[in-house]
Amino acid sequence: MDNRPIGVFDSGLGGLTVLKEIMEKLPGEDVVYFGDTARIPYGSRSRETVIKYSFQCLRFLLSKNIKAIVIACNTASAIALEESKKVFDIPIIGVIEPGAKAAIGATKNNRIGVIGTVGTINSEAYQKKIRRMHPSIEVMGVSCPLFVPIVEEGWADTDVAMITAEKYLLELKEHHIDTLVLGCTHYPILRYTVKQVMGEDVTLVNPAYETAKCTKDMLKENCLLSDKIDGAKYEFYVSDDPEKFRRIGGNILGKEISSIQKINIEVI
Amino acid sequence: MDNRPIGVFDSGLGGLTVLKEIMEKLPGEDVVYFGDTARIPYGSRSRETVIKYSFQCLRFLLSKNIKAIVIACNTASAIALEESKKVFDIPIIGVIEPGAKAAIGATKNNRIGVIGTVGTINSEAYQKKIRRMHPSIEVMGVSCPLFVPIVEEGWADTDVAMITAEKYLLELKEHHIDTLVLGCTHYPILRYTVKQVMGEDVTLVNPAYETAKCTKDMLKENCLLSDKIDGAKYEFYVSDDPEKFRRIGGNILGKEISSIQKINIEVI
Repeated sequence: MDNRPIGVFDSGLGGLTVLKEIMEKLPGEDVVYFGDTARIPYGSRSRETVIKYSFQCLRFLLSKNIKAIVIACNTASAIALEESKKVFDIPIIGVIEPGAKAAIGATKNNRIGVIGTVGTINSEAYQKKIRRMHPSIEVMGVSCPLFVPIVEEGWADTDVAMITAEKYLLELKEHHIDTLVLGCTHYPILRYTVKQVMGEDVTLVNPAYETAKCTKDMLKENCLLSDKIDGAKYEFYVSDDPEKFRRIGGNILGKEISSIQKINIEVI
Repeated sequence: MDNRPIGVFDSGLGGLTVLKEIMEKLPGEDVVYFGDTARIPYGSRSRETVIKYSFQCLRFLLSKNIKAIVIACNTASAIALEESKKVFDIPIIGVIEPGAKAAIGATKNNRIGVIGTVGTINSEAYQKKIRRMHPSIEVMGVSCPLFVPIVEEGWADTDVAMITAEKYLLELKEHHIDTLVLGCTHYPILRYTVKQVMGEDVTLVNPAYETAKCTKDMLKENCLLSDKIDGAKYEFYVSDDPEKFRRIGGNILGKEISSIQKINIEVI
Protein backbone atom coordinates (compact mmCIF):
# COMPACT_ATOMS: atom_id res chain seq x y z
CA MET A 1 0.00 0.00 0.00
CA ASP A 2 1.23 3.48 -0.89
CA ASN A 3 -0.82 6.62 -0.31
CA ARG A 4 1.46 9.02 -2.14
CA PRO A 5 -0.15 10.71 -5.17
CA ILE A 6 0.11 9.72 -8.83
CA GLY A 7 1.71 12.36 -11.09
CA VAL A 8 -0.07 13.15 -14.35
CA PHE A 9 1.06 15.59 -17.02
CA ASP A 10 -0.05 16.87 -20.38
CA SER A 11 0.86 19.78 -22.65
CA GLY A 12 -2.30 21.48 -21.43
CA LEU A 13 -5.91 20.71 -20.78
CA GLY A 14 -6.38 17.62 -22.94
CA GLY A 15 -4.89 15.28 -20.33
CA LEU A 16 -7.85 16.05 -18.11
CA THR A 17 -9.81 13.52 -20.21
CA VAL A 18 -7.31 10.93 -18.90
CA LEU A 19 -7.52 12.28 -15.35
CA LYS A 20 -11.32 12.07 -15.49
CA GLU A 21 -11.12 8.35 -16.27
CA ILE A 22 -8.52 7.85 -13.49
CA MET A 23 -10.84 9.61 -11.03
CA GLU A 24 -13.63 7.20 -11.94
CA LYS A 25 -11.53 4.02 -11.94
CA LEU A 26 -9.31 4.90 -8.95
CA PRO A 27 -11.40 7.10 -6.63
CA GLY A 28 -8.96 6.61 -3.71
CA GLU A 29 -5.84 7.80 -5.54
CA ASP A 30 -4.55 11.33 -4.94
CA VAL A 31 -3.25 13.03 -8.09
CA VAL A 32 -0.85 15.87 -8.84
CA TYR A 33 -1.63 17.17 -12.35
CA PHE A 34 0.65 19.43 -14.36
CA GLY A 35 -0.55 21.15 -17.56
CA ASP A 36 2.24 22.80 -19.56
CA THR A 37 -0.10 25.53 -20.83
CA ALA A 38 2.73 28.00 -21.50
CA ARG A 39 4.21 25.71 -24.14
CA ILE A 40 1.19 24.00 -25.64
CA PRO A 41 0.93 22.58 -28.30
CA TYR A 42 3.58 19.85 -28.22
CA GLY A 43 2.15 18.23 -31.38
CA SER A 44 3.94 20.46 -33.87
CA ARG A 45 7.31 20.66 -32.09
CA SER A 46 10.53 18.79 -32.86
CA ARG A 47 11.43 15.47 -31.21
CA GLU A 48 14.28 17.08 -29.30
CA THR A 49 12.05 19.80 -27.87
CA VAL A 50 9.27 17.40 -26.86
CA ILE A 51 11.80 15.26 -24.95
CA LYS A 52 13.26 18.32 -23.23
CA TYR A 53 9.83 19.63 -22.22
CA SER A 54 8.67 16.18 -21.05
CA PHE A 55 11.75 15.74 -18.85
CA GLN A 56 11.06 19.12 -17.24
CA CYS A 57 7.46 18.05 -16.53
CA LEU A 58 8.68 14.75 -15.05
CA ARG A 59 11.24 16.49 -12.84
CA PHE A 60 8.55 18.86 -11.58
CA LEU A 61 6.20 15.98 -10.71
CA LEU A 62 9.03 14.07 -9.01
CA SER A 63 9.53 17.08 -6.72
CA LYS A 64 5.98 16.42 -5.43
CA ASN A 65 6.72 13.06 -3.78
CA ILE A 66 4.71 10.97 -6.26
CA LYS A 67 4.74 7.16 -6.61
CA ALA A 68 4.10 6.75 -10.36
CA ILE A 69 3.62 8.87 -13.48
CA VAL A 70 1.00 8.92 -16.23
CA ILE A 71 2.03 10.78 -19.39
CA ALA A 72 -1.47 11.88 -20.41
CA CYS A 73 -0.33 13.45 -23.69
CA ASN A 74 -0.17 11.44 -26.90
CA THR A 75 2.69 13.44 -28.40
CA ALA A 76 4.84 13.19 -25.25
CA SER A 77 3.98 9.48 -24.88
CA ALA A 78 4.85 8.84 -28.52
CA ILE A 79 8.14 10.69 -28.46
CA ALA A 80 9.43 10.78 -24.87
CA LEU A 81 8.12 7.68 -23.01
CA GLU A 82 10.96 5.30 -23.84
CA GLU A 83 13.61 7.93 -23.13
CA SER A 84 11.88 8.80 -19.84
CA LYS A 85 11.88 5.20 -18.69
CA LYS A 86 15.64 5.05 -19.24
CA VAL A 87 16.31 8.20 -17.20
CA PHE A 88 13.74 8.20 -14.36
CA ASP A 89 13.55 5.43 -11.78
CA ILE A 90 9.78 5.35 -11.21
CA PRO A 91 6.90 3.46 -12.89
CA ILE A 92 5.79 5.50 -15.94
CA ILE A 93 2.89 4.77 -18.26
CA GLY A 94 1.86 6.52 -21.48
CA VAL A 95 -1.36 6.51 -23.49
CA ILE A 96 -0.02 4.79 -26.64
CA GLU A 97 0.29 1.16 -25.49
CA PRO A 98 -3.16 1.03 -23.82
CA GLY A 99 -4.72 2.54 -26.96
CA ALA A 100 -2.84 0.18 -29.28
CA LYS A 101 -3.86 -2.91 -27.28
CA ALA A 102 -7.53 -1.88 -27.24
CA ALA A 103 -7.48 -1.29 -31.01
CA ILE A 104 -6.00 -4.75 -31.64
CA GLY A 105 -8.72 -6.23 -29.45
CA ALA A 106 -11.44 -4.39 -31.35
CA THR A 107 -10.53 -4.92 -35.03
CA LYS A 108 -12.13 -7.74 -36.99
CA ASN A 109 -10.82 -7.01 -40.49
CA ASN A 110 -7.27 -6.21 -39.28
CA ARG A 111 -7.40 -2.65 -40.64
CA ILE A 112 -6.85 0.02 -37.99
CA GLY A 113 -6.69 3.79 -38.41
CA VAL A 114 -4.97 6.22 -36.05
CA ILE A 115 -5.55 9.98 -35.95
CA GLY A 116 -3.43 12.43 -33.94
CA THR A 117 -1.15 15.46 -34.07
CA VAL A 118 1.69 15.71 -36.59
CA GLY A 119 4.15 14.78 -33.82
CA THR A 120 2.25 11.66 -32.77
CA ILE A 121 1.57 10.41 -36.30
CA ASN A 122 5.06 11.12 -37.68
CA SER A 123 6.64 9.35 -34.70
CA GLU A 124 4.73 6.23 -35.89
CA ALA A 125 4.41 5.25 -32.21
CA TYR A 126 0.91 3.74 -32.55
CA GLN A 127 1.66 2.19 -35.91
CA LYS A 128 4.88 0.51 -34.73
CA LYS A 129 3.37 -0.65 -31.44
CA ILE A 130 0.39 -2.28 -33.21
CA ARG A 131 2.52 -3.90 -35.93
CA ARG A 132 4.96 -5.24 -33.35
CA MET A 133 2.18 -6.86 -31.34
CA HIS A 134 0.30 -8.06 -34.40
CA PRO A 135 2.35 -7.98 -37.66
CA SER A 136 -0.55 -8.91 -39.95
CA ILE A 137 -2.59 -5.83 -39.02
CA GLU A 138 -2.55 -2.93 -41.45
CA VAL A 139 -2.32 0.45 -39.70
CA MET A 140 -2.86 3.81 -41.36
CA GLY A 141 -2.03 7.05 -39.56
CA VAL A 142 -3.44 10.48 -40.45
CA SER A 143 -2.56 13.74 -38.70
CA CYS A 144 -5.40 16.22 -38.13
CA PRO A 145 -3.75 19.51 -37.05
CA LEU A 146 -6.99 21.51 -37.08
CA PHE A 147 -8.88 19.26 -34.65
CA VAL A 148 -7.30 20.68 -31.47
CA PRO A 149 -7.94 24.34 -32.35
CA ILE A 150 -11.51 23.45 -33.41
CA VAL A 151 -12.14 21.77 -30.03
CA GLU A 152 -10.54 24.68 -28.15
CA GLU A 153 -12.76 27.12 -30.08
CA GLY A 154 -15.80 25.15 -28.86
CA TRP A 155 -16.72 24.27 -32.47
CA ALA A 156 -16.76 20.47 -32.10
CA ASP A 157 -20.37 20.23 -33.29
CA THR A 158 -20.34 22.76 -36.13
CA ASP A 159 -20.23 22.48 -39.92
CA VAL A 160 -16.57 23.56 -39.78
CA ALA A 161 -15.77 20.47 -37.67
CA MET A 162 -17.80 18.27 -40.02
CA ILE A 163 -16.16 19.47 -43.27
CA THR A 164 -12.71 19.34 -41.68
CA ALA A 165 -13.33 15.79 -40.47
CA GLU A 166 -14.56 14.76 -43.94
CA LYS A 167 -11.31 16.07 -45.47
CA TYR A 168 -9.02 14.41 -42.94
CA LEU A 169 -10.85 11.09 -42.73
CA LEU A 170 -11.52 10.49 -46.45
CA GLU A 171 -8.41 8.35 -46.92
CA LEU A 172 -9.23 6.22 -43.87
CA LYS A 173 -12.77 5.62 -45.15
CA GLU A 174 -11.45 4.55 -48.55
CA HIS A 175 -9.08 2.21 -46.76
CA HIS A 176 -12.06 0.45 -45.10
CA ILE A 177 -10.69 0.48 -41.56
CA ASP A 178 -13.06 -0.95 -38.94
CA THR A 179 -11.32 0.56 -35.87
CA LEU A 180 -10.09 4.11 -35.29
CA VAL A 181 -7.81 5.23 -32.45
CA LEU A 182 -8.52 8.79 -31.24
CA GLY A 183 -4.80 9.40 -30.72
CA CYS A 184 -4.98 12.84 -29.13
CA THR A 185 -6.56 13.69 -25.80
CA HIS A 186 -8.75 16.40 -27.38
CA TYR A 187 -10.30 14.11 -29.98
CA PRO A 188 -12.88 12.29 -27.80
CA ILE A 189 -14.68 15.66 -27.70
CA LEU A 190 -15.09 15.29 -31.51
CA ARG A 191 -16.25 11.69 -31.33
CA TYR A 192 -19.83 12.32 -32.52
CA THR A 193 -18.57 14.22 -35.57
CA VAL A 194 -15.94 11.56 -36.28
CA LYS A 195 -18.53 8.80 -35.83
CA GLN A 196 -20.90 10.52 -38.26
CA VAL A 197 -18.18 10.75 -40.92
CA MET A 198 -16.77 7.24 -40.42
CA GLY A 199 -20.12 5.47 -40.01
CA GLU A 200 -21.64 3.35 -37.26
CA ASP A 201 -19.62 0.23 -38.13
CA VAL A 202 -16.26 1.77 -37.21
CA THR A 203 -15.25 1.28 -33.55
CA LEU A 204 -13.67 4.36 -31.95
CA VAL A 205 -10.94 3.64 -29.37
CA ASN A 206 -10.41 6.23 -26.63
CA PRO A 207 -6.89 5.77 -25.15
CA ALA A 208 -7.83 7.92 -22.12
CA TYR A 209 -10.22 5.24 -20.94
CA GLU A 210 -7.77 2.40 -21.65
CA THR A 211 -4.94 4.25 -19.90
CA ALA A 212 -6.92 4.55 -16.67
CA LYS A 213 -7.46 0.77 -16.72
CA CYS A 214 -3.73 0.18 -17.28
CA THR A 215 -2.80 2.66 -14.54
CA LYS A 216 -4.75 0.53 -12.07
CA ASP A 217 -2.94 -2.61 -13.25
CA MET A 218 0.45 -0.86 -13.00
CA LEU A 219 -0.20 0.28 -9.43
CA LYS A 220 -1.39 -3.19 -8.46
CA GLU A 221 1.67 -4.92 -9.97
CA ASN A 222 4.04 -2.54 -8.16
CA CYS A 223 2.12 -2.75 -4.84
CA LEU A 224 1.44 0.96 -5.08
CA LEU A 225 -2.34 1.09 -4.69
CA SER A 226 -3.67 3.46 -2.05
CA ASP A 227 -5.63 2.00 0.88
CA LYS A 228 -8.28 4.71 0.54
CA ILE A 229 -11.53 3.74 -1.19
CA ASP A 230 -12.50 7.27 -2.13
CA GLY A 231 -12.04 10.91 -1.12
CA ALA A 232 -8.93 11.41 -3.22
CA LYS A 233 -7.30 14.86 -3.29
CA TYR A 234 -6.28 16.64 -6.49
CA GLU A 235 -3.63 19.32 -6.92
CA PHE A 236 -3.26 21.20 -10.20
CA TYR A 237 -0.26 23.10 -11.54
CA VAL A 238 0.06 24.98 -14.83
CA SER A 239 2.79 27.00 -16.53
CA ASP A 240 0.41 29.75 -17.77
CA ASP A 241 -3.04 31.27 -17.14
CA PRO A 242 -4.58 29.34 -14.20
CA GLU A 243 -7.96 31.06 -14.73
CA LYS A 244 -8.41 29.74 -18.27
CA PHE A 245 -7.41 26.28 -17.04
CA ARG A 246 -9.87 26.48 -14.16
CA ARG A 247 -12.71 27.53 -16.47
CA ILE A 248 -12.26 25.14 -19.41
CA GLY A 249 -10.73 22.36 -17.28
CA GLY A 250 -13.68 22.39 -14.91
CA ASN A 251 -15.96 21.75 -17.89
CA ILE A 252 -13.87 18.79 -19.08
CA LEU A 253 -13.67 17.23 -15.61
CA GLY A 254 -17.29 17.97 -14.77
CA LYS A 255 -16.20 19.27 -11.37
CA GLU A 256 -14.68 22.42 -10.00
CA ILE A 257 -10.89 22.80 -9.97
CA SER A 258 -10.13 24.45 -6.64
CA SER A 259 -6.42 24.02 -5.89
CA ILE A 260 -4.44 25.42 -8.83
CA GLN A 261 -1.04 27.08 -8.93
CA LYS A 262 1.16 28.58 -11.64
CA ILE A 263 4.82 27.53 -11.75
CA ASN A 264 7.82 28.41 -13.91
CA ILE A 265 8.58 25.16 -15.74
CA GLU A 266 11.48 26.58 -17.76
CA VAL A 267 13.84 26.69 -14.80
CA ILE A 268 13.19 23.07 -13.70
CA MET B 1 24.67 56.50 -41.37
CA ASP B 2 24.65 53.23 -39.51
CA ASN B 3 25.28 49.89 -41.20
CA ARG B 4 24.43 47.68 -38.23
CA PRO B 5 21.48 45.35 -38.81
CA ILE B 6 17.85 45.85 -37.82
CA GLY B 7 16.50 43.23 -35.38
CA VAL B 8 13.10 41.72 -36.21
CA PHE B 9 11.22 39.17 -34.12
CA ASP B 10 7.97 37.24 -34.22
CA SER B 11 6.52 34.25 -32.40
CA GLY B 12 7.32 32.21 -35.50
CA LEU B 13 7.02 32.45 -39.26
CA GLY B 14 4.29 35.07 -39.57
CA GLY B 15 6.69 37.97 -39.09
CA LEU B 16 8.34 37.03 -42.37
CA THR B 17 5.46 38.86 -44.10
CA VAL B 18 6.79 41.99 -42.37
CA LEU B 19 10.39 41.14 -43.24
CA LYS B 20 9.40 40.68 -46.88
CA GLU B 21 8.04 44.23 -47.01
CA ILE B 22 11.19 45.55 -45.26
CA MET B 23 13.36 43.77 -47.84
CA GLU B 24 11.45 45.52 -50.62
CA LYS B 25 11.36 48.98 -49.05
CA LEU B 26 14.87 48.90 -47.50
CA PRO B 27 17.02 46.73 -49.77
CA GLY B 28 20.26 48.00 -48.22
CA GLU B 29 19.39 47.16 -44.60
CA ASP B 30 20.88 44.02 -43.01
CA VAL B 31 18.42 42.16 -40.77
CA VAL B 32 18.72 39.69 -37.89
CA TYR B 33 15.41 37.81 -37.62
CA PHE B 34 14.37 35.71 -34.65
CA GLY B 35 11.33 33.38 -34.79
CA ASP B 36 10.31 31.97 -31.40
CA THR B 37 9.06 28.74 -32.98
CA ALA B 38 9.45 26.72 -29.75
CA ARG B 39 6.83 28.85 -28.02
CA ILE B 40 4.44 29.79 -30.81
CA PRO B 41 1.59 30.74 -30.60
CA TYR B 42 1.75 33.89 -28.45
CA GLY B 43 -1.86 34.77 -29.29
CA SER B 44 -3.48 32.54 -26.66
CA ARG B 45 -1.00 33.20 -23.82
CA SER B 46 -1.39 35.46 -20.80
CA ARG B 47 -0.18 39.08 -20.79
CA GLU B 48 2.55 38.27 -18.27
CA THR B 49 3.93 35.43 -20.40
CA VAL B 50 3.86 37.45 -23.64
CA ILE B 51 5.86 40.22 -21.95
CA LYS B 52 8.38 37.74 -20.54
CA TYR B 53 8.84 36.01 -23.92
CA SER B 54 9.11 39.34 -25.77
CA PHE B 55 11.79 40.60 -23.40
CA GLN B 56 13.80 37.41 -24.00
CA CYS B 57 13.51 37.93 -27.76
CA LEU B 58 14.59 41.56 -27.40
CA ARG B 59 17.59 40.61 -25.23
CA PHE B 60 18.64 38.02 -27.80
CA LEU B 61 18.46 40.54 -30.66
CA LEU B 62 20.38 43.12 -28.61
CA SER B 63 23.19 40.58 -28.28
CA LYS B 64 23.56 40.79 -32.09
CA ASN B 65 24.70 44.44 -32.24
CA ILE B 66 21.54 45.79 -33.85
CA LYS B 67 20.52 49.44 -34.26
CA ALA B 68 16.71 49.22 -34.03
CA ILE B 69 14.00 46.65 -33.44
CA VAL B 70 10.79 45.78 -35.28
CA ILE B 71 8.31 43.70 -33.28
CA ALA B 72 6.77 41.89 -36.25
CA CYS B 73 4.14 40.09 -34.16
CA ASN B 74 0.72 41.61 -33.51
CA THR B 75 0.27 39.95 -30.12
CA ALA B 76 3.71 41.01 -28.84
CA SER B 77 3.22 44.52 -30.26
CA ALA B 78 -0.20 44.79 -28.64
CA ILE B 79 0.90 43.57 -25.23
CA ALA B 80 4.65 44.21 -24.86
CA LEU B 81 5.61 47.26 -26.98
CA GLU B 82 4.98 49.96 -24.38
CA GLU B 83 6.73 47.94 -21.63
CA SER B 84 9.66 47.26 -23.97
CA LYS B 85 10.13 50.93 -24.75
CA LYS B 86 10.40 51.64 -21.01
CA VAL B 87 13.04 48.96 -20.45
CA PHE B 88 15.22 48.92 -23.59
CA ASP B 89 17.17 51.94 -24.79
CA ILE B 90 16.88 51.46 -28.56
CA PRO B 91 14.31 52.57 -31.17
CA ILE B 92 11.51 49.97 -31.22
CA ILE B 93 8.52 49.84 -33.55
CA GLY B 94 5.52 47.51 -33.52
CA VAL B 95 2.88 46.68 -36.14
CA ILE B 96 -0.14 48.16 -34.33
CA GLU B 97 0.38 51.90 -34.80
CA PRO B 98 1.22 51.67 -38.53
CA GLY B 99 -1.87 49.48 -39.08
CA ALA B 100 -4.10 51.79 -37.04
CA LYS B 101 -2.95 54.90 -38.93
CA ALA B 102 -3.51 53.27 -42.31
CA ALA B 103 -7.02 52.18 -41.27
CA ILE B 104 -7.92 55.72 -40.17
CA GLY B 105 -6.64 57.00 -43.52
CA ALA B 106 -8.75 54.46 -45.42
CA THR B 107 -12.17 54.63 -43.73
CA LYS B 108 -14.87 56.84 -45.18
CA ASN B 109 -17.83 55.86 -42.98
CA ASN B 110 -15.77 55.86 -39.74
CA ARG B 111 -16.47 52.19 -39.05
CA ILE B 112 -13.35 50.04 -38.81
CA GLY B 113 -13.05 46.34 -38.06
CA VAL B 114 -9.98 44.59 -36.63
CA ILE B 115 -9.35 40.85 -36.70
CA GLY B 116 -6.54 39.10 -34.82
CA THR B 117 -5.64 36.53 -32.18
CA VAL B 118 -7.40 36.40 -28.80
CA GLY B 119 -4.36 38.13 -27.23
CA THR B 120 -4.33 40.98 -29.74
CA ILE B 121 -8.08 41.60 -29.71
CA ASN B 122 -8.52 41.31 -25.93
CA SER B 123 -5.63 43.73 -25.38
CA GLU B 124 -7.74 46.27 -27.36
CA ALA B 125 -4.45 47.70 -28.67
CA TYR B 126 -5.78 48.51 -32.16
CA GLN B 127 -9.13 49.68 -30.84
CA LYS B 128 -7.59 52.04 -28.25
CA LYS B 129 -4.97 53.38 -30.65
CA ILE B 130 -7.60 54.19 -33.31
CA ARG B 131 -10.02 55.75 -30.81
CA ARG B 132 -7.25 57.84 -29.28
CA MET B 133 -6.21 59.22 -32.68
CA HIS B 134 -9.79 59.66 -33.89
CA PRO B 135 -12.44 59.46 -31.13
CA SER B 136 -15.43 59.56 -33.48
CA ILE B 137 -14.43 56.34 -35.25
CA GLU B 138 -16.25 53.16 -34.23
CA VAL B 139 -13.93 50.16 -33.99
CA MET B 140 -15.06 46.57 -33.64
CA GLY B 141 -12.56 43.80 -32.84
CA VAL B 142 -13.14 40.10 -33.53
CA SER B 143 -10.69 37.32 -32.65
CA CYS B 144 -10.32 34.49 -35.18
CA PRO B 145 -8.35 31.72 -33.42
CA LEU B 146 -8.74 29.20 -36.25
CA PHE B 147 -7.21 31.41 -38.96
CA VAL B 148 -3.56 30.74 -38.00
CA PRO B 149 -3.91 26.93 -37.92
CA ILE B 150 -5.84 27.03 -41.22
CA VAL B 151 -3.03 29.02 -42.87
CA GLU B 152 -0.38 26.72 -41.38
CA GLU B 153 -2.29 23.69 -42.71
CA GLY B 154 -2.12 25.24 -46.21
CA TRP B 155 -5.92 25.43 -46.33
CA ALA B 156 -6.23 29.19 -46.98
CA ASP B 157 -8.20 28.64 -50.20
CA THR B 158 -10.48 25.79 -49.13
CA ASP B 159 -14.15 25.58 -48.15
CA VAL B 160 -13.04 25.18 -44.51
CA ALA B 161 -11.37 28.62 -44.67
CA MET B 162 -14.45 30.09 -46.37
CA ILE B 163 -17.01 28.74 -43.85
CA THR B 164 -14.76 29.69 -40.93
CA ALA B 165 -14.36 33.22 -42.30
CA GLU B 166 -18.14 33.51 -42.79
CA LYS B 167 -18.67 32.58 -39.12
CA TYR B 168 -16.04 34.95 -37.75
CA LEU B 169 -16.83 37.91 -40.00
CA LEU B 170 -20.64 37.85 -39.84
CA GLU B 171 -20.78 40.40 -37.01
CA LEU B 172 -18.41 42.76 -38.83
CA LYS B 173 -20.51 42.57 -42.00
CA GLU B 174 -23.66 43.33 -40.05
CA HIS B 175 -21.85 46.28 -38.52
CA HIS B 176 -21.22 47.72 -42.03
CA ILE B 177 -17.53 48.43 -41.56
CA ASP B 178 -15.77 49.79 -44.68
CA THR B 179 -12.17 49.04 -43.54
CA LEU B 180 -10.74 45.87 -42.02
CA VAL B 181 -7.31 45.57 -40.36
CA LEU B 182 -5.69 42.16 -40.86
CA GLY B 183 -4.27 42.28 -37.32
CA CYS B 184 -2.19 39.09 -37.40
CA THR B 185 0.80 38.46 -39.61
CA HIS B 186 -0.71 35.23 -40.97
CA TYR B 187 -3.93 36.83 -42.15
CA PRO B 188 -2.71 38.46 -45.38
CA ILE B 189 -2.42 34.88 -46.69
CA LEU B 190 -6.22 34.62 -46.21
CA ARG B 191 -6.93 37.96 -47.88
CA TYR B 192 -8.75 36.56 -50.94
CA THR B 193 -11.06 34.50 -48.72
CA VAL B 194 -11.65 37.47 -46.39
CA LYS B 195 -12.25 39.77 -49.37
CA GLN B 196 -14.79 37.35 -50.82
CA VAL B 197 -16.71 37.23 -47.53
CA MET B 198 -16.54 40.97 -46.78
CA GLY B 199 -17.18 42.14 -50.34
CA GLU B 200 -15.26 44.36 -52.77
CA ASP B 201 -16.20 47.62 -51.03
CA VAL B 202 -14.33 46.84 -47.82
CA THR B 203 -10.69 47.98 -47.79
CA LEU B 204 -8.26 45.48 -46.24
CA VAL B 205 -5.33 47.01 -44.33
CA ASN B 206 -2.12 44.96 -44.12
CA PRO B 207 -0.03 46.23 -41.16
CA ALA B 208 3.06 44.39 -42.49
CA TYR B 209 3.19 46.77 -45.46
CA GLU B 210 2.54 49.84 -43.31
CA THR B 211 5.17 48.78 -40.75
CA ALA B 212 7.90 48.58 -43.39
CA LYS B 213 7.07 52.18 -44.41
CA CYS B 214 7.23 53.33 -40.78
CA THR B 215 10.50 51.45 -40.21
CA LYS B 216 12.08 53.52 -42.97
CA ASP B 217 10.79 56.74 -41.36
CA MET B 218 12.06 55.65 -37.94
CA LEU B 219 15.55 54.92 -39.28
CA LYS B 220 15.62 58.24 -41.11
CA GLU B 221 14.53 60.24 -38.04
CA ASN B 222 17.20 58.58 -35.89
CA CYS B 223 19.94 58.90 -38.57
CA LEU B 224 20.22 55.14 -38.63
CA LEU B 225 19.79 54.40 -42.36
CA SER B 226 22.45 52.23 -43.94
CA ASP B 227 24.57 53.71 -46.72
CA LYS B 228 24.16 50.56 -48.84
CA ILE B 229 21.64 50.72 -51.70
CA ASP B 230 21.13 46.97 -51.91
CA GLY B 231 22.87 43.64 -51.21
CA ALA B 232 21.60 43.40 -47.63
CA LYS B 233 22.48 40.33 -45.58
CA TYR B 234 19.94 38.33 -43.59
CA GLU B 235 20.57 36.11 -40.57
CA PHE B 236 17.83 33.90 -39.17
CA TYR B 237 17.52 32.38 -35.70
CA VAL B 238 14.76 30.13 -34.35
CA SER B 239 14.07 28.39 -31.03
CA ASP B 240 12.85 25.12 -32.65
CA ASP B 241 12.98 23.14 -35.90
CA PRO B 242 15.13 25.17 -38.37
CA GLU B 243 14.21 22.85 -41.25
CA LYS B 244 10.49 23.55 -41.02
CA PHE B 245 11.27 27.27 -40.81
CA ARG B 246 13.55 27.06 -43.85
CA ARG B 247 10.90 25.22 -45.88
CA ILE B 248 7.77 27.22 -45.07
CA GLY B 249 9.64 30.48 -44.48
CA GLY B 250 11.29 30.28 -47.90
CA ASN B 251 7.81 30.11 -49.45
CA ILE B 252 6.60 33.17 -47.55
CA LEU B 253 9.70 35.22 -48.41
CA GLY B 254 9.86 33.98 -51.99
CA LYS B 255 13.60 33.41 -51.60
CA GLU B 256 15.80 30.77 -50.04
CA ILE B 257 16.69 31.06 -46.35
CA SER B 258 20.33 30.05 -46.19
CA SER B 259 21.79 31.18 -42.86
CA ILE B 260 19.64 29.76 -40.06
CA GLN B 261 20.55 28.72 -36.54
CA LYS B 262 18.68 27.26 -33.58
CA ILE B 263 19.18 28.90 -30.18
CA ASN B 264 17.93 28.26 -26.64
CA ILE B 265 15.76 31.30 -25.91
CA GLU B 266 14.70 30.13 -22.46
CA VAL B 267 18.07 30.84 -20.88
CA ILE B 268 18.34 34.40 -22.26
